[in-house]
Amino acid sequence: MADHSSRLLPELPPLAVSLGDPAGIGPEVIAKAWAAREAHRLHPFFAIGDRRSIEAVWDGPVIAISHPAEASGIFDTALPLLQVDDPGDIVAGKPNLAGARCALDAVELAVGLARSGAASGLVTGPVAKAQLYAIGFTHPGQTEFVAERCGVAPENVAMMLVGPDLRTVPITIHCPLAEVATQLTIDLIVSRVRACARGLVRDFGIAVPRMAVAGLNPHAGEGGTLGREEIDIIAPAIAELRAEGLQVTGPLAADTMFHAAARAQYDAAICMYHDQALIPLKTLHFDVGVNVTLGLPLLRTSPDHGTAFGIAGQGIATPRAMIAAIALAGQCAATRATI
Amino acid sequence: MADHSSRLLPELPPLAVSLGDPAGIGPEVIAKAWAAREAHRLHPFFAIGDRRSIEAVWDGPVIAISHPAEASGIFDTALPLLQVDDPGDIVAGKPNLAGARCALDAVELAVGLARSGAASGLVTGPVAKAQLYAIGFTHPGQTEFVAERCGVAPENVAMMLVGPDLRTVPITIHCPLAEVATQLTIDLIVSRVRACARGLVRDFGIAVPRMAVAGLNPHAGEGGTLGREEIDIIAPAIAELRAEGLQVTGPLAADTMFHAAARAQYDAAICMYHDQALIPLKTLHFDVGVNVTLGLPLLRTSPDHGTAFGIAGQGIATPRAMIAAIALAGQCAATRATI
Repeated sequence: MADHSSRLLPELPPLAVSLGDPAGIGPEVIAKAWAAREAHRLHPFFAIGDRRSIEAVWDGPVIAISHPAEASGIFDTALPLLQVDDPGDIVAGKPNLAGARCALDAVELAVGLARSGAASGLVTGPVAKAQLYAIGFTHPGQTEFVAERCGVAPENVAMMLVGPDLRTVPITIHCPLAEVATQLTIDLIVSRVRACARGLVRDFGIAVPRMAVAGLNPHAGEGGTLGREEIDIIAPAIAELRAEGLQVTGPLAADTMFHAAARAQYDAAICMYHDQALIPLKTLHFDVGVNVTLGLPLLRTSPDHGTAFGIAGQGIATPRAMIAAIALAGQCAATRATI
Repeated sequence: MADHSSRLLPELPPLAVSLGDPAGIGPEVIAKAWAAREAHRLHPFFAIGDRRSIEAVWDGPVIAISHPAEASGIFDTALPLLQVDDPGDIVAGKPNLAGARCALDAVELAVGLARSGAASGLVTGPVAKAQLYAIGFTHPGQTEFVAERCGVAPENVAMMLVGPDLRTVPITIHCPLAEVATQLTIDLIVSRVRACARGLVRDFGIAVPRMAVAGLNPHAGEGGTLGREEIDIIAPAIAELRAEGLQVTGPLAADTMFHAAARAQYDAAICMYHDQALIPLKTLHFDVGVNVTLGLPLLRTSPDHGTAFGIAGQGIATPRAMIAAIALAGQCAATRATI
């Protein structure tokens, strides 16, 4: 896949990185990512959140900023930080409602800065959904929250999982397996694949993206004997997308789509459900997977892991996925700026 | 994983290899496997089927035998072949009903020879289900047919997919995804895991097998918010199996079960549906996957591919999976003989 790091434009604004839940591993992995900025040639970024949540788990330099424009000048010598309202006492590994409010404030501020152009894009640290729900958050996750703040309907957004050798897009995401078939519609597939195609052009610089669509059932339904969704839903969606001029193939048997020779045939695999997309990605690329939200006016990535409260505050969290998320955001921002 | 090839016992009877549908790639890949017998140190085997289906696609030596005991002496210089009734005209790539009868005769004869001890085990070439159904075959596949001929109920058999670095067992197999949740029961999971455990001991020589059980839903249901099958069905099955003394863990989030570090924790991954088992296996081990039927009195393997009528007769089919299936059958036969 293309490496755009050599095209990073110095005049691009910095990236906004929300710390996520202050009691999770977000602050730690973001600080560690800053420490690894030179080795990974990371585009300048600033953190948004509570300063103490970083200082509690990291003894490197942090400098408070009051505007994103200050970040790039500081980035070489310290982690620039935009403070949100003081969340009160934070204990790593012990989430509370004040921390959830802090996390939500951070992502909301980050969205605003990315929308205004003050930030080139947005990288979100992990949040705890249970805590967010308790403070009145009504979205399934940060992705839908960001989409709403951008005025984009959730079905017009696509979540793409990106690893070094594979990109996958689940059509249905966080729903029980038994409900996948009932949630699948022609319109939903068409909307998400369109968002995927736009994102591959705009953020990944692929002029004519090739998308391979998985079937839902074993052997892609084997001509209807193992399920009819391929015939009734997936094939018609593919036909509609092809009629629009998109390069879409399928429905393909999901089990033979992800070996190396098969992956060479497409730029993104469109999957019908969460594990169909996540199993191959994490089998191949455990702990470097990046979640990219496509279909938004702004650029947004996040590491493909959670708050990991169980290991927060111990200094043992790996920053690999966060580094990958920040690196990819920088590459995509550069691509956007040059297309 | 253990390599038992050095333990091959010369006095073990040969393996019986049914050619599968004579119009498919079975005859070609079996002949090519014989040609590669020295490089892969394959245990002696004989083919069962129609001689002309081999000669139409391969010009190596074939010698007809009338009893398996003749095979081992011939194996070094020619492919030993046990002829079934003449199926009439066979054209590679053009399946017909006579060919389906020939395939069924071959597997039935092979089962009998393996049950009697004249063969150390059974390797089945690929058959075409549509053709078999047309001649009155009523089983979902060869696995169930073999189980019935052995007097074993289908739920007490487990299909295990084996690659160099991963073994997976699907609990439900060839059913539409929308029906997986309704087919899953505590009893079915318990029966298949027991069969898996017995097979790992007897055929793979693993004294205390470790089995990791996947959840059905994203994130293994996330405490019930993304589906209740983990709580209502899978966890109780695991509890029952553990109470029997088996080393069983789970339910685990399926997407994080298959990277290298996770695989090191178990000997077999128990999966809830076809693609959950097949996606990771074929992503890691495309075209060397072997299907092993556990829970039978006899040993049975098969290559994890179909008849591939589209490329039959062209000489381009890869024998890698067939070689792996024969090699594994030889290793398992040796293990059985020494335990």
